[in-house]
Amino acid sequence: MKALIFDLDGTLVDTVYAHVLAWQQTLGKAGLIVTGQRIHRLIGMSGDLLIRSAARELGREIGSSESKELQLRHGELFEQLLPEPRLLPGARELIFFLQDNSIPFGIATSGRRPKINPSLDKLGLDPKIAVIERRDVAYGKPEPDLFEACRQRLGVNAEECYVVGDAVWDLFAARRIGILGLALKCGGYGADELYRAGAYRVFRDPADLHNSLDELGMLY
Amino acid sequence: MKALIFDLDGTLVDTVYAHVLAWQQTLGKAGLIVTGQRIHRLIGMSGDLLIRSAARELGREIGSSESKELQLRHGELFEQLLPEPRLLPGARELIFFLQDNSIPFGIATSGRRPKINPSLDKLGLDPKIAVIERRDVAYGKPEPDLFEACRQRLGVNAEECYVVGDAVWDLFAARRIGILGLALKCGGYGADELYRAGAYRVFRDPADLHNSLDELGMLY
Repeated sequence: MKALIFDLDGTLVDTVYAHVLAWQQTLGKAGLIVTGQRIHRLIGMSGDLLIRSAARELGREIGSSESKELQLRHGELFEQLLPEPRLLPGARELIFFLQDNSIPFGIATSGRRPKINPSLDKLGLDPKIAVIERRDVAYGKPEPDLFEACRQRLGVNAEECYVVGDAVWDLFAARRIGILGLALKCGGYGADELYRAGAYRVFRDPADLHNSLDELGMLY
Repeated sequence: MKALIFDLDGTLVDTVYAHVLAWQQTLGKAGLIVTGQRIHRLIGMSGDLLIRSAARELGREIGSSESKELQLRHGELFEQLLPEPRLLPGARELIFFLQDNSIPFGIATSGRRPKINPSLDKLGLDPKIAVIERRDVAYGKPEPDLFEACRQRLGVNAEECYVVGDAVWDLFAARRIGILGLALKCGGYGADELYRAGAYRVFRDPADLHNSLDELGMLY
């Protein structure tokens, strides 16, 4: 196996719970009352899909300009709630290990620049590393476009790389383009939920994944 | 089956995600860096145990006065993050149904008054309803003291009632005193995690439980 394609939020940075609260309060102010648990299980989808999905459960339709406005407010509130996102355990060490050993990897996130910049900065990414963000593709997760664009940028075949994510949407998108999915529990899903969504292996966090690279056929 | 003993946070009120963020930031400021996911899976324990457990994972010991101070700060931050807790879907309707039909029930929570008062107010509880809080017993969850005190107040035998909770700690505590546990997914645990911790049945939220009272031998 030659390469890794990482999701960002919940996989490398510990942002899921702040995103949940920011979405819940943003949607609540717009009259869309959704439980924290429901939002948690929608996180990882692109923002526009998350809004549409939450609204549909309530029998509401949200237009595209209202959706954009809500995404903007979510971004502001998220920044207030979590001005300095923390890396997940072992994330930086894993990234540095991959960089030092010239193991190809990229990041494919439903987030957008500049909102994701603080997280990317913390990781200490080499500027050569491919970062595919929401704006780079037509459709966010669970469409596979982000992962597919990252795979092409890395120049590897689907059967030569893994997607690493924390949400069932990562696993669903990976499976649709024939890429094996590795799941991390640090986004808050239970292991069974991840296996049932097609995870090939489930790890606790980036540190646990790092310790298992041998078992994944990544080291020779 | 004669009676129900309810957990409060994550079971009747939608407070888990705000508690996670409040604990994470409170502990982080004290140098205890814990992921959101780890805290999420500790929620439902009493605050003192949650702090000790999080600290132990980091190889730290927290004294009882520091623990009290942290619990105080958590309470303040929680109130800032979520000044008005929302009821979970169907919670009020379920409580009213039980009251109207004279089905005995009580609340047994690791929370403390006055912090839990806004949540209790929203439920519209009859003042006669038993509310057992952390201060009423020697040990919080996962010790069974809260549920046991509530069971005694209701005057029912262990085999005649259910505990309803959202966390594995509720299920563990219930099992230790021979009470069947019903679990709700609205606190953010996956169904498998709840079944494996001994849930007899898992429901989506209070509304789903309400619709299933017949299947639980509660209605005649």
